[in-house]
Amino acid sequence: MVVRTGGAPSQREKQNMFEAAELGRKVSKADFTERANAVHTALLEVQRKLRGSQMSVIVVVSGVEGAGKGEVVNRFHEWLDARGIQTFAYWDESDEERERPPFWRFWRNLPPRGTIGIMFGSWYTRPIIDRVFGNIDESRFERELADISNLEQMLTADGALIVKFWFHLPKEVQRARLQQDIKEQKKSWNISPIAKKFSKRYDAFASVSERAIRITDTGHAPWYIVESSDRRYRDLTTGATLLDAIEERLKHAPSTALRAPMRKASIPDTAESKITVLDRVDLGNKLEEKKYSRLLSRYQRQLYDLAWRARQRNINTIAVFEGWDAAGKGGAIRRVTAALDARLYRVISVAAPSDEERAQHYLWRFWRHVPRSGYVTIYDRSWYGRVLVERVENFAKREEWMRAYQEINEFEAQLTAHGAILLKFWVHLGQDEQLRRFQEREKIPWKAHKITEEDWRNREQWDAYTEAVNDMVTHTSTEYAPWTLVPGNDKKYARVQVIKTFCRRLKEVV
Amino acid sequence: MVVRTGGAPSQREKQNMFEAAELGRKVSKADFTERANAVHTALLEVQRKLRGSQMSVIVVVSGVEGAGKGEVVNRFHEWLDARGIQTFAYWDESDEERERPPFWRFWRNLPPRGTIGIMFGSWYTRPIIDRVFGNIDESRFERELADISNLEQMLTADGALIVKFWFHLPKEVQRARLQQDIKEQKKSWNISPIAKKFSKRYDAFASVSERAIRITDTGHAPWYIVESSDRRYRDLTTGATLLDAIEERLKHAPSTALRAPMRKASIPDTAESKITVLDRVDLGNKLEEKKYSRLLSRYQRQLYDLAWRARQRNINTIAVFEGWDAAGKGGAIRRVTAALDARLYRVISVAAPSDEERAQHYLWRFWRHVPRSGYVTIYDRSWYGRVLVERVENFAKREEWMRAYQEINEFEAQLTAHGAILLKFWVHLGQDEQLRRFQEREKIPWKAHKITEEDWRNREQWDAYTEAVNDMVTHTSTEYAPWTLVPGNDKKYARVQVIKTFCRRLKEVV
Repeated sequence: MVVRTGGAPSQREKQNMFEAAELGRKVSKADFTERANAVHTALLEVQRKLRGSQMSVIVVVSGVEGAGKGEVVNRFHEWLDARGIQTFAYWDESDEERERPPFWRFWRNLPPRGTIGIMFGSWYTRPIIDRVFGNIDESRFERELADISNLEQMLTADGALIVKFWFHLPKEVQRARLQQDIKEQKKSWNISPIAKKFSKRYDAFASVSERAIRITDTGHAPWYIVESSDRRYRDLTTGATLLDAIEERLKHAPSTALRAPMRKASIPDTAESKITVLDRVDLGNKLEEKKYSRLLSRYQRQLYDLAWRARQRNINTIAVFEGWDAAGKGGAIRRVTAALDARLYRVISVAAPSDEERAQHYLWRFWRHVPRSGYVTIYDRSWYGRVLVERVENFAKREEWMRAYQEINEFEAQLTAHGAILLKFWVHLGQDEQLRRFQEREKIPWKAHKITEEDWRNREQWDAYTEAVNDMVTHTSTEYAPWTLVPGNDKKYARVQVIKTFCRRLKEVV
Repeated sequence: MVVRTGGAPSQREKQNMFEAAELGRKVSKADFTERANAVHTALLEVQRKLRGSQMSVIVVVSGVEGAGKGEVVNRFHEWLDARGIQTFAYWDESDEERERPPFWRFWRNLPPRGTIGIMFGSWYTRPIIDRVFGNIDESRFERELADISNLEQMLTADGALIVKFWFHLPKEVQRARLQQDIKEQKKSWNISPIAKKFSKRYDAFASVSERAIRITDTGHAPWYIVESSDRRYRDLTTGATLLDAIEERLKHAPSTALRAPMRKASIPDTAESKITVLDRVDLGNKLEEKKYSRLLSRYQRQLYDLAWRARQRNINTIAVFEGWDAAGKGGAIRRVTAALDARLYRVISVAAPSDEERAQHYLWRFWRHVPRSGYVTIYDRSWYGRVLVERVENFAKREEWMRAYQEINEFEAQLTAHGAILLKFWVHLGQDEQLRRFQEREKIPWKAHKITEEDWRNREQWDAYTEAVNDMVTHTSTEYAPWTLVPGNDKKYARVQVIKTFCRRLKEVV
């Protein structure tokens, strides 16, 4: 492949990526039969190994119309055990999809570990079509491709194998093939009603697609350009490539060592060097009962109206509550929800993941709850568990929680880019006050269930959590999704601050 | 409650169900505080017991506008632990919902065992509104209510507790309340933008709602009409009623003994008395290779076109494949899918349920895969596992698989009523032929994985399965979803019969 350069193009310079792939490769019928059998057997074998692994396989099927993508997918279904393979075709977005960030429709279909997901059309389709038809400009196009690379890198780091196929046909072959299909429409059973409209823009598609491939042809998720003039060559190459890719990865899990350097700066061992963001929270803040009632009531009225206005304008509000045990997250959440029409909000209480959730990237369980437009969604604990409890308790490996900051920032960027308001609360508490509340709770029957062994264990990890919180706030305080650190020693003060923050953020937008 | 009768109504006869509930009941503030605390504590306690049980709780929140349904739901969220409760509000259907049978949107939100799901609006909303506005006639209205009763009975039999609240306001109180809300709009934070339009049709709503309640006020899922003029009375009654209902049910699981009589007829012990539907299948059917190729190719072409036409007309095709081990289901399915554009079909291979699926009614895992309009969905094994393997292996209790025939017929009626074509294949096989194939498979490397210990065990249960299949075909062969019994001793014959059946059924419709 030679990249086009400026000036008068020589014959060689004019050749682009796709033309370089036009070599006229073929496979004879006899060769095909023999090798196809071998590939078939080997694929079934490798699929069985895959089933017992922690790895999922995402196959992206893209390319020009008429290249026979449908035939290839059918071939996969012929060669692979249907019990471990799912194909998803991406047509127009449904309204449920349109009302969520663009990647939502892909997240909802990601293959669980141990299985293969075939994406017929994929995250590449929309940017390419939008660019060809001029709906987006070049810089937006490149930004969207960068988002795709990020996503692919994230999934790969989590153990997914991404194999991307681009099925190519020379212009003349494509035209001839489509014309023949049209001519033989009665006889042939191989022409799809939507195939035609793209062939007219062959050159524009080729140019845009080439750039898309070039930008996203990364080491962790490479593209395979498959010459598709000869069907046997095409299918055999695709099958064998998928086979090799899975086998290779099962043998050598990708090393993540490079992604986990020492993160900690070397800090002098003095008291003031160890100040954290939490030390800046003034736990002395208080509210008198009377003032509390007045303020709470005022902001609740405001919030009720604001939430309805947000609903009418299809704006989502997503609020994340994190904080020490017994800091009063639940009480603050209830003061917020008491101000909302019950039809407008949902509280997601994050507990242990189900087995379907465990079989996916850890963000999957949060993506699946991303609401349609116009709602308030409150997460009682959240994706930040990855860098809090999972870090402190070693549920996540060092490199896993370390890369989570960027993954989370990217996730939140997608939510807010789609128009959501994102609020994040850390409800802070003094260590003494926590002890007082634990002891108090144990005495009150309907609160006793809230204190468990785990709470006492967590308390012993106070310093480790403090460090984790400090890192979390430092690394994920973004312009679009800032943290609010709430002083929680006085519950009344905390509740008012939370609901006031809701009102302030909503007012900026609705 | 006195049902209205013909002739000149006396004062007493005129009183309807709702008027009978207008007693002016109240709770003082002091009484409320004390009792609310007790209800709160008890609800948390009972919720903890619920968590360890196999029971889910579905709370239906219905009633007139202005009665404060939202306040009640907020109260639930205040009294209950958010970790075991979810509220779903039903607004307009999304296009993904419209493209599926009406109950799909409720199935997707059913609470898992051990949790409480609050339905704000519910399966009652649409029939009532449709009837009030004259979109459906009386008989259709009653049919839809009967469908609801069926659904509720089915969920109850599976261990769900369904508690249905109807919040009532006298006409004058409603009018006054809404008017005051409107007047105080600036100050009050309690009026929803959609509350008004219904109040004008108070009488029509009352009449239709009363009938809906009467028809669906069953022993297993009774209605509670709650007078809502006094908010404290309303909330306390609702909370205590829910509490009692859960406590009662946790103590006494509903007896299913009545639903499980002897099903078997007493058949004379002679050979001809024991003929089953499978004996009527002519296993001698065969196809020569040449004729097979010709027919297969002809029907595949037909099917390709028909599937595209079905897609254009938004018609779903759902095919169920059941059959003996090694009967050739997979091969038949692949001959069908080879004829379909890969974007149009999906194969669902039914394996062991996930924990999310186990926490639901057994049909839930099939409801969740019901496709949007225009697709072909093929189930490799299906909901019939309930009356086949689950029956034979005693995974399902006798009463569970016995009521499954009706549940399945109802499920399939909903699919076809929504426009789906439903095909059901039992691929039959002689016992000797099965043995021959088992032994053959064990010799071929890429087929060996298909034979497991389980297959050999199943084989020993041949007679039990034969009886189960016979019962299944007898009880679930409906006009809208007939079984096709496919002679499978000759694979070629079987494949052609399957694909021919696809074509025939699709041709009737597209």
